[in-house]
Amino acid sequence: MRRGERLALLSKILCENPNRVISLKFFSERLDAAKSSISEDLNIIKNAFMLSGEGELSTIAGAGGGVRYRIKKPESEIKSFVETLCENLKDQKRIIPGGYIYMTDVIFSPEYSVKIGEIFAQIFMDREPTCVLTVETKGIPIALMTARALDVPLVVARRDSRVTEGPSVNISYVSGTGQKIQNMSLPKRALSENARVLIVDDFMKGGGTARGMMELSAEFNAEVVGVAVLVATGTPQCKLVKDYTSLMVLDGIDTEKGIINIRPDKITIS
Amino acid sequence: MRRGERLALLSKILCENPNRVISLKFFSERLDAAKSSISEDLNIIKNAFMLSGEGELSTIAGAGGGVRYRIKKPESEIKSFVETLCENLKDQKRIIPGGYIYMTDVIFSPEYSVKIGEIFAQIFMDREPTCVLTVETKGIPIALMTARALDVPLVVARRDSRVTEGPSVNISYVSGTGQKIQNMSLPKRALSENARVLIVDDFMKGGGTARGMMELSAEFNAEVVGVAVLVATGTPQCKLVKDYTSLMVLDGIDTEKGIINIRPDKITIS
Repeated sequence: MRRGERLALLSKILCENPNRVISLKFFSERLDAAKSSISEDLNIIKNAFMLSGEGELSTIAGAGGGVRYRIKKPESEIKSFVETLCENLKDQKRIIPGGYIYMTDVIFSPEYSVKIGEIFAQIFMDREPTCVLTVETKGIPIALMTARALDVPLVVARRDSRVTEGPSVNISYVSGTGQKIQNMSLPKRALSENARVLIVDDFMKGGGTARGMMELSAEFNAEVVGVAVLVATGTPQCKLVKDYTSLMVLDGIDTEKGIINIRPDKITIS
Repeated sequence: MRRGERLALLSKILCENPNRVISLKFFSERLDAAKSSISEDLNIIKNAFMLSGEGELSTIAGAGGGVRYRIKKPESEIKSFVETLCENLKDQKRIIPGGYIYMTDVIFSPEYSVKIGEIFAQIFMDREPTCVLTVETKGIPIALMTARALDVPLVVARRDSRVTEGPSVNISYVSGTGQKIQNMSLPKRALSENARVLIVDDFMKGGGTARGMMELSAEFNAEVVGVAVLVATGTPQCKLVKDYTSLMVLDGIDTEKGIINIRPDKITIS
């Protein structure tokens, strides 16, 4: 195999395994090439990714060492993606009677969910989460794609406990808008002790659901290292969760005039 | 940018957009290179992917033409993956009181769900589905990854209709084991007329849920082009859905002896 072909394959393997440390030995055996050649190839890829803002390739020394690809998009690209998303969500056909906004197509879209997951991963990567937690149903796609970009497992709390999943921890919580008591359940074996949890959900109004997931994590002696939501409402300004990151803020929906007021939130990208 | 760097970036873009036709113009502008150079690069990548069984690069002629990367794993690799999955699921710690098997960690795992989705996509690609349909909750990750590999939208039916998603079509169906009546709901705007639907789910016993999704699709005048499940039970042998593909067959669980009888199903890969 010539260098050009090796470069194509190495790039493919790296991008299909974001945030994973892959040893030179693995590449060397897989591509039947000397480690020194692989090293040179990786330098070319590193350079290409850096030049084009496509991500970061770093070398990890030591026994479990190797090379790791991490998604690092330029801040400008992330901001422009969130702006495009806002424009899409502003379409007045999205207004549902009762003052809701239809965004199911966006959150279930593979294309959008991949990108949203990559952004969440990039923002929270340095806090080294060991798993992503969400609650069924609508948060699952973006949570799964976040877990994929971080190379950690996804854990999904259910609304009620299932006989098919064995012993579980169940909590009740009051939704942030104080309307009703909800349940959340997680199989005991789903979350390991001392896990570092990144909470991901599609929507936050009062913050009750996110707070519920924090309480559930506490029952497992897990540490919550971050809370990420796609859309947070502008009001109530004071949520039950103090420290969270949202990509967009929904200020309100004027059903009379057919206007959806949604805007990019301020986000800090490392 | 030199050829080596271009190869790394082209390979990355192609693998991040499986089953999508990308024009030479796009690559040429993105990488600031002549179309003739891009063409030569693509030939090298095509060759590398073919040699290593990593997938297929094809050229689509005409106005909307370009180049398309499709995941095509060798049959041997797919079979060995399914065998590994069976071994993992045979672990007797997975037995849940009541004779169930705990597989939530597998179906929610980004790593496994990506691979399962790629296999489903490869099997059903030629039937040209225009969307993937599942019902909440556990089928969502593998359905999402199938949709991603096919580059089509994911549609998720809910157990009850939501006020936040507007007018919906609701059906009742009897679960395959005849125990209870269940509901399934899909927003009217979620599925377009004349859609070609690939149904994906994690588990099939009697086939009632899959049959329910077929009935729901019929309400939208959509055509079901395939039914794919991760695990089907050995009994009842006669399911409510005649034509389906499963990757594994669960023949039974011996809770006394701690044995899970699960094996790869016969699958035909194009």
